[in-house]
Amino acid sequence: MAISEDMMPAGMPFVVRVEMHSGSVDFGQLAMAIAAAGGDVVAVDLVRAGRERTVRDITCRVKNPDVMRELAARLEALPGTRVVNISDRTFLTHLGGKIEVTARTPIKNRDDLSMVYTPGVARVALAIAQDPAKAFQLTIKRNTVAVVTDGSAVLGLGDIGPLGALPVMEGKCQLFKELGGVDAFPICLTCHAVEEIVETVANIASGFGGINLEDISSPRCFAVEEQLQARLDIPVFHDDQHGTAVVVAAGLLNALRIVNKRPESIRAVVIGIGAAGVACTKMLMTLGVREILGVSLEGILHRDERYENPMHNWYAQRTNPRGIRGSVREALDGADVVIGVSGPGALNAEDLRGMAKDPIVFALANPEPEIAPDVALERARVLATGRSDYPNQINNVLCFPGLFRGVLDCRARVINEEMKLAAARAIASVVKPEELDAEYIVPSVFNHEVAPAVCEAVMEAAYRTGVARRARHAGGRRGEEEGLQDLWISGADRGPGS
Amino acid sequence: MAISEDMMPAGMPFVVRVEMHSGSVDFGQLAMAIAAAGGDVVAVDLVRAGRERTVRDITCRVKNPDVMRELAARLEALPGTRVVNISDRTFLTHLGGKIEVTARTPIKNRDDLSMVYTPGVARVALAIAQDPAKAFQLTIKRNTVAVVTDGSAVLGLGDIGPLGALPVMEGKCQLFKELGGVDAFPICLTCHAVEEIVETVANIASGFGGINLEDISSPRCFAVEEQLQARLDIPVFHDDQHGTAVVVAAGLLNALRIVNKRPESIRAVVIGIGAAGVACTKMLMTLGVREILGVSLEGILHRDERYENPMHNWYAQRTNPRGIRGSVREALDGADVVIGVSGPGALNAEDLRGMAKDPIVFALANPEPEIAPDVALERARVLATGRSDYPNQINNVLCFPGLFRGVLDCRARVINEEMKLAAARAIASVVKPEELDAEYIVPSVFNHEVAPAVCEAVMEAAYRTGVARRARHAGGRRGEEEGLQDLWISGADRGPGS
Repeated sequence: MAISEDMMPAGMPFVVRVEMHSGSVDFGQLAMAIAAAGGDVVAVDLVRAGRERTVRDITCRVKNPDVMRELAARLEALPGTRVVNISDRTFLTHLGGKIEVTARTPIKNRDDLSMVYTPGVARVALAIAQDPAKAFQLTIKRNTVAVVTDGSAVLGLGDIGPLGALPVMEGKCQLFKELGGVDAFPICLTCHAVEEIVETVANIASGFGGINLEDISSPRCFAVEEQLQARLDIPVFHDDQHGTAVVVAAGLLNALRIVNKRPESIRAVVIGIGAAGVACTKMLMTLGVREILGVSLEGILHRDERYENPMHNWYAQRTNPRGIRGSVREALDGADVVIGVSGPGALNAEDLRGMAKDPIVFALANPEPEIAPDVALERARVLATGRSDYPNQINNVLCFPGLFRGVLDCRARVINEEMKLAAARAIASVVKPEELDAEYIVPSVFNHEVAPAVCEAVMEAAYRTGVARRARHAGGRRGEEEGLQDLWISGADRGPGS
Repeated sequence: MAISEDMMPAGMPFVVRVEMHSGSVDFGQLAMAIAAAGGDVVAVDLVRAGRERTVRDITCRVKNPDVMRELAARLEALPGTRVVNISDRTFLTHLGGKIEVTARTPIKNRDDLSMVYTPGVARVALAIAQDPAKAFQLTIKRNTVAVVTDGSAVLGLGDIGPLGALPVMEGKCQLFKELGGVDAFPICLTCHAVEEIVETVANIASGFGGINLEDISSPRCFAVEEQLQARLDIPVFHDDQHGTAVVVAAGLLNALRIVNKRPESIRAVVIGIGAAGVACTKMLMTLGVREILGVSLEGILHRDERYENPMHNWYAQRTNPRGIRGSVREALDGADVVIGVSGPGALNAEDLRGMAKDPIVFALANPEPEIAPDVALERARVLATGRSDYPNQINNVLCFPGLFRGVLDCRARVINEEMKLAAARAIASVVKPEELDAEYIVPSVFNHEVAPAVCEAVMEAAYRTGVARRARHAGGRRGEEEGLQDLWISGADRGPGS
């Protein structure tokens, strides 16, 4: 994959270590050379200052690695200047990994040790062995999610394998903690067959309160999720499917308000019938949308055709009620909404021309959308993309931290359609009616109202649909209080008179 | 398992919440009632003070839950006193789990996000996909160990299942971090067949720098370890075997110095030929001990017998050179050293009487040793147990944090005999010659010299035996410096002139 400037709108951060010979060159010449190459100086740190030589670390942002090469060449060309090395701040940030496992309680002395380890831990171990539900109070199962991938469909990079996927999973775990207070740990699988993935994850699942499947390619992802959920009593959630669908639904709910249309009366087109496309379609159905057309590489999916991908056959039977045939152009004729979850170039200006009044266009391929945002905006009333440098970024980060926070807090067995819909409505609701605008249909990923709102809504839906295992009265977001109550009753040996 | 006072020498910590009616009762009466029941007040916290009623949390240590019941009854019997609840500090310590997953770098803004997650992470993911060895620099693989159990042989509790084992594994992970700076994460398996365990762990291993197997019952543990190590290029270490053997060897080396005997000339008896017994025997052989007798429930293992347990046949072929038959009594006749890794009652005073001059007795069954320490000390010159309330506690905590620290720092592929021996010698060396005493043959588990000494020795042995993958010159315990060097060369696009 070529690294383009589109991928890093703010520029890639590099650190150049430069040795300068005193008297031969000054910092002004250096700064000018950097600017001339197209670099942007962000920070300067003195590493060593001597009578003859000075060493500085210069952090600069560049649009792409070519600029960095040009920049280094220009610095080397200066008199008395040597580039000691160039490092890449993104790589530096990853050095040694991005997450760590830390103790919640310190072990300062023998007394602490005797409680957290032998001999004290034996009583806790026995209590759980006698009543496994206690693991939700007395172990990390309470708050821990496995982020599981086989590395087969990572970002836009495709099958880069489990180790290549690990930094992405680590980043996801950071976001789980930062935004949802959830302890998430990456599990990278070297196996790829559905049965092997299911077997492996089922074997290790007992210590977790939920399973977040990630970047597993379609159509295996459908079977993996379905089979795993059938075997486990904790939620299994393929984020590429449902996380995307939830945030798309949130954005769509708000977009429809702007154009004053109702889900029941619109015609929607989904381009790209993979993991995200199928999940978005199911979510559209849940929202009440009646006419949905799916477009894959084979064209508009049609019930009279037979497809190699079993999911496409499933899809064709449930969509395209008017039996329209053709490709994107035909699908979009008269459509109110188009949701692209495919790849760059899947949509063009001409395609959009046939859409109904006030077209809503979600072009979510990342990093390069199905259609250039500027082109789409000539026709679209509302445009959403996966990018952070345009308004209306559809980002799964809006969903998974709050969703799993809620799921863990109520000890849900599954994540059902009602809970996903509740999450979507909660995300949409963070944008207040008076704030709602074609350029503001979803909140920012840094809006800290989102996760608590999603958490509350998801819990409410879980209780309503009977999939929550924790007593509802229990207060406190982390449930510490309720945990204590349980403990007082069941964990301690009460005196006869108490 | 009955909870006896032996298990918790310092007493079990409980918190009693008491409501007292002002005027009817005073704190002195309360304190007297607690003392009369056999409780020991450790701390008092005022919860609520009112005109009529006062609520206090009283932390006290009791010898066993019966004392707690008696104590509660006595408090309830006081005028104007109500026991609101009783909680158990050991259980409170476990509430919500003992470890968490935290971010090493904060995500404060969009700039941070763009480096740790999309789009920036894509370049790191690609770099690893192209050169998987980079995962040791750029991911948690660098510093992370899986603590894997199936819960089949937990502490002295036996097969209590994976969830029951989880608090023990969490405690172990805490110790890994506290003493070795290692990020350890518990993996609790619901499968038990050797092939399933091997397959599952192999499937999830890529993200880890090492595998610590824990509390997997014998004889499956031998095959699991051997097969896993054959499949993986990271160390697989069954702590119940080798951790115990390393610390036993450390203690024995120092004990032999006290009695002025050499490994080559002693006769050693091992009681209990399970995971620990086999590993201790192998380690004794590595130390140069020539005459070893193993005693199982079938008596002294003998080369002419055929045993059901395949490991016992293996053992019988390699030990008992003089073909002695009988049981513990006959085995100990003239023995210099006895190592008990079986269960309470396996040794008695009469058995020890036939031992050679200056007997060395390691009675390691936990929590109750093979022979009561006081009884053993009537005959033994040196006694070691697994307990913290007698001198010479043989505790695996002395080994695993430093061992894995060293293994991760040099990126060892395996943990070989030389590395284990080096660890044993390093632990022994922390006890200085002038400190060496029959009551001080191994350092305390809280001696912070131990882990660094073990780490250094293990790395040295790994380099010497050619199993370390990291360039030796690389300085810095966490290898940050070396990581940077690699990065500068390979991770960044260097300018042509640099």
